[in-house]
Amino acid sequence: MIGIIATLKVAEGKNAEFEAIFTDLAAQVKANEPGCVAYQLTKSRTDPQTYKVLELYADQAALAAHGQTEYFKAAQPKMGPCMGGRPEIEVLDGVG
Amino acid sequence: MIGIIATLKVAEGKNAEFEAIFTDLAAQVKANEPGCVAYQLTKSRTDPQTYKVLELYADQAALAAHGQTEYFKAAQPKMGPCMGGRPEIEVLDGVG
Repeated sequence: MIGIIATLKVAEGKNAEFEAIFTDLAAQVKANEPGCVAYQLTKSRTDPQTYKVLELYADQAALAAHGQTEYFKAAQPKMGPCMGGRPEIEVLDGVG
Repeated sequence: MIGIIATLKVAEGKNAEFEAIFTDLAAQVKANEPGCVAYQLTKSRTDPQTYKVLELYADQAALAAHGQTEYFKAAQPKMGPCMGGRPEIEVLDGVG
């Protein structure tokens, strides 16, 4: 298992637009990627502009496949104008 | 959905013992908690003493129930001597 914590900073005033784009992306991930075990957008309780995506992939191949999907690629330029900073991506190795 | 990122610092020399205790706990969570959607131990790629647990619960009731299980309570004193610092628990609200 491989875990990802993606920390995303959203520009003020762009929350609703960002959430709509990401929710659509997540629905496509769930529908098409059996190797993606979890892909959940969450929102900080202390900073309204900070979101964290909790992601779990069965293996490295599943993670690589995720980044190559057409819908993932198509979502990037849509989300770009909603961002308030560069994303931080932490990759973690599953244990057990 | 509610997300949790639990950051755990493990004392040097205690990694194997900690991983065994946690793996046993995770197996019981998966077997007994339908409201716990994900409960995955992961390990940092940059700090061998840092672990992060990625957790997803269907709702607040599922999260509360998790903390009240006998196996969760029983695991705490077993893990205590393996820890190298206080855990950090971040609670996040699911979106979408």
